[in-house]
Amino acid sequence: MNIYRYEENPLITPLDVKPIHEGFEVIGAFNGGVAEYNGEVLLLLRVAEKPVSEDPEIVLAPVYNAKNKELELQSFRLDDENYDFEDPRMIRSKAKLEGFSYLTSLSYIRIARSKDGHHFTLDEKPFLYPFNEYQTFGIEDARVTQIGDTYHVNFSAVSEFGVADALVTTKDFENLEYQGNIFAPENKDVLIFPEKINGKYYALHRPSLKSIGNLDIWIASSPDLRSFGDHRHLLGIRPGEYDSGRVGGGCVPIKTEEGWLILYHGATEENRYVMGAALLDLNDPTIVLKRTKTPILEPVADYEKNGFFGDVVFACGAIQEGDTLHMYYGVADTSMAGCDMKISEILHQLEVEAK
Amino acid sequence: MNIYRYEENPLITPLDVKPIHEGFEVIGAFNGGVAEYNGEVLLLLRVAEKPVSEDPEIVLAPVYNAKNKELELQSFRLDDENYDFEDPRMIRSKAKLEGFSYLTSLSYIRIARSKDGHHFTLDEKPFLYPFNEYQTFGIEDARVTQIGDTYHVNFSAVSEFGVADALVTTKDFENLEYQGNIFAPENKDVLIFPEKINGKYYALHRPSLKSIGNLDIWIASSPDLRSFGDHRHLLGIRPGEYDSGRVGGGCVPIKTEEGWLILYHGATEENRYVMGAALLDLNDPTIVLKRTKTPILEPVADYEKNGFFGDVVFACGAIQEGDTLHMYYGVADTSMAGCDMKISEILHQLEVEAK
Repeated sequence: MNIYRYEENPLITPLDVKPIHEGFEVIGAFNGGVAEYNGEVLLLLRVAEKPVSEDPEIVLAPVYNAKNKELELQSFRLDDENYDFEDPRMIRSKAKLEGFSYLTSLSYIRIARSKDGHHFTLDEKPFLYPFNEYQTFGIEDARVTQIGDTYHVNFSAVSEFGVADALVTTKDFENLEYQGNIFAPENKDVLIFPEKINGKYYALHRPSLKSIGNLDIWIASSPDLRSFGDHRHLLGIRPGEYDSGRVGGGCVPIKTEEGWLILYHGATEENRYVMGAALLDLNDPTIVLKRTKTPILEPVADYEKNGFFGDVVFACGAIQEGDTLHMYYGVADTSMAGCDMKISEILHQLEVEAK
Repeated sequence: MNIYRYEENPLITPLDVKPIHEGFEVIGAFNGGVAEYNGEVLLLLRVAEKPVSEDPEIVLAPVYNAKNKELELQSFRLDDENYDFEDPRMIRSKAKLEGFSYLTSLSYIRIARSKDGHHFTLDEKPFLYPFNEYQTFGIEDARVTQIGDTYHVNFSAVSEFGVADALVTTKDFENLEYQGNIFAPENKDVLIFPEKINGKYYALHRPSLKSIGNLDIWIASSPDLRSFGDHRHLLGIRPGEYDSGRVGGGCVPIKTEEGWLILYHGATEENRYVMGAALLDLNDPTIVLKRTKTPILEPVADYEKNGFFGDVVFACGAIQEGDTLHMYYGVADTSMAGCDMKISEILHQLEVEAK
C-alpha cells in the first residue's frame, strides 16, 4: 500500500487553535469529519478545550448547563477518595472504573477550510457547540455524509445520560436543523451511506456493550435517516490481529464497482489504532465480502506516534477524486493529518488478503 | 392502593412445566407477556431450562448453534481460574465481572392459555425458540402490543454479540413474521405503544450503559415500528427511592383520559424489584406529567419474596377491563402471579404523590 502523507502534516495542531473559553487551553484539534463545499475542503474538527486549574491539587470538569445555556466548572480535589484521576481525559468513580463520571475537557466542532486540501484556515466560531441536555459533556467525532445538496452531520453527544449519536442537517454549514439522537446510547462511530440501497438507507454504528459482546461494528437500515432498525452485526474484533480490541467505522462508505469500500479504525487491546478496510456487497451491505488482514495505514510518523494519546491514526472522512482518496485523519488524539492513497491499491490489498 | 392478588397464585410455577430438552430442568416460568386472543388470556411465558450436570464439579452452559440449529452444551470446571460461578445464573470471566460470558440456562417463550384468567393450560411446544445468531443464549421477557389484528411481540435476544431487542408479528400466535432487531444492543424492556400519536409510533426502551449513564427508561419514535429514532431520556433512577438502582418498562402503555399510564419496574441497588407508575402527556409521550413516590405493587407474598431471585415483582403485561386492570407479573424470577387493581386508584395515587 502506497501512502502519500502530506508534507504539511500535521495540518492542524492545538497550537493553531485559539480557545473560545477564557482560562482554557486547546488540548486537541483532531478526528475531523470531511466535506466538500463551495470548492473547498471542510474539516469539521473536534476541538477539545480544557480548563486550566490554578491549583495543582484541583481538577476541573467543564459541564454545559442545558438550562441556562452556560458552561460551568465542577472541581475535584486530587485527594478525593471517591474518584480516580489516573486517565487525564476523565474523572472516574472508584466504584465504577470501567466508565467515567466527568470529562476534563469539553469538545465541540469547529470548521477548518482549505482551497488546496493542504493549507487550512480555522473558523473563529464553533460550527456545533453543545445545545441540549444530551451534550453536556461535549460533542465529539463528527462524520459528514452528503446526499444531494444536504449534508448529514452526525456526532457523539456525550452527557450524564450516556453517549448517544445525534444528527444535524445543513445545506450551507451555517443553518442547521437538529434531527435528534438517531442512535440511543451507548453508541458511536455512526457512518451514513451516501445513497439508498434497494430502497433503504443504511448506517454503520458501534454499540459499546456492558454485559456481553465486543466493540464490534453493526449495520442498520432506515426509511428516512431519522429512525434505524434491523440491526445486524457486521464486523467483529479479531483476537491476535490489528483489530483485537475494538473496531469502529471511520470514513463514509465509498461506492466502487467491487462493492462498498469501508475504511474503519481498528485498535489492539493496548490501544494502538490503525486504519483497515473491508468490502461490502453493493446490493446488500449487510454482507461482508472481504476484509484486510494488514492495516492500510498505521501510526508511523512522529506526529502519529506521539501526542495526547500516542500511536493513533483515526480517520473520520475522505474525499474521492477518481482513483485517489484524500483521507484526513486524527493523530494521537491531538492533531489532524492528511494522506493520499489509491482506491485501486486498497481493493488490490483486499483481493490479495482475502485469499 | 388496593391490590387483589389472585387466590390461585402462583398461577404457574416451574413444577407445572415439563422441560422440552432432555436432561434439563425448568428453573423458571416467569415474566410473561400478556395478550387477549380468541376469548382467552395468553401469557407468553419466559421458560428457563437448565442442563443438569452429572458432575458437581462441572457447570454446563447451553448455547444454541444458529448454523446447525442445535442446542449445544459447553462445560466449565468449577476450578477453572478464568471464570467466576458465584451468580448461579451465569458464568463470568474474572477479567470482566460486570458482564457475563455464558448463561447457565436457556430461555424461550411458551404460551399458557386461560378462559377465566386464573387457571392456565400450558402449550406443549414453544411459541418462540432461538432461531438465529442473535439468540444463541436465549429469548427473554416478551411483551405484546396489539394494534388492529396484529400482535407485535418483542423480546430480548441474547447472544455473544450482545443483548438486543427483536420483534416478531403474528395474527394468530402460530404464524410468525420476524422483523429483525428493532433496538441495537445493549437494550431491553422495550414497550411499543398501542397506537400512533400525532402520526408516529412510540416505544419505551432501556439501554444498559457501559461508560456513563444509569439504567434509565428512554423513549423513541418510529414511522413504521421497524426503525426507531429521536431517542430521548424519559424516566431516571432516583437515589434513595424504590427505584434507586434501575428502572425499566413493564406493561404496554395504557391510554387514560389523563394521559398514557406507564407501569414500570423499579429496583433498589440491592435488587428489590417493585412496580411503580408514571403518567405521560397524551399528545406528547416524551413529557412526564407525574410519577409515583411509593410503589403500586411490592413483593409481599411468600411466592414474591422467595424463589430463584427473591423480592421481585416484574410485570410484563396487563389486560384492561373498564377500570379494572388484570396485571400478570413474574415473581422471584421463578413463577407467574396475577392481581387486579383499579386504574382510577393508580391515577389517584399519582395525583396525590405528584404534590
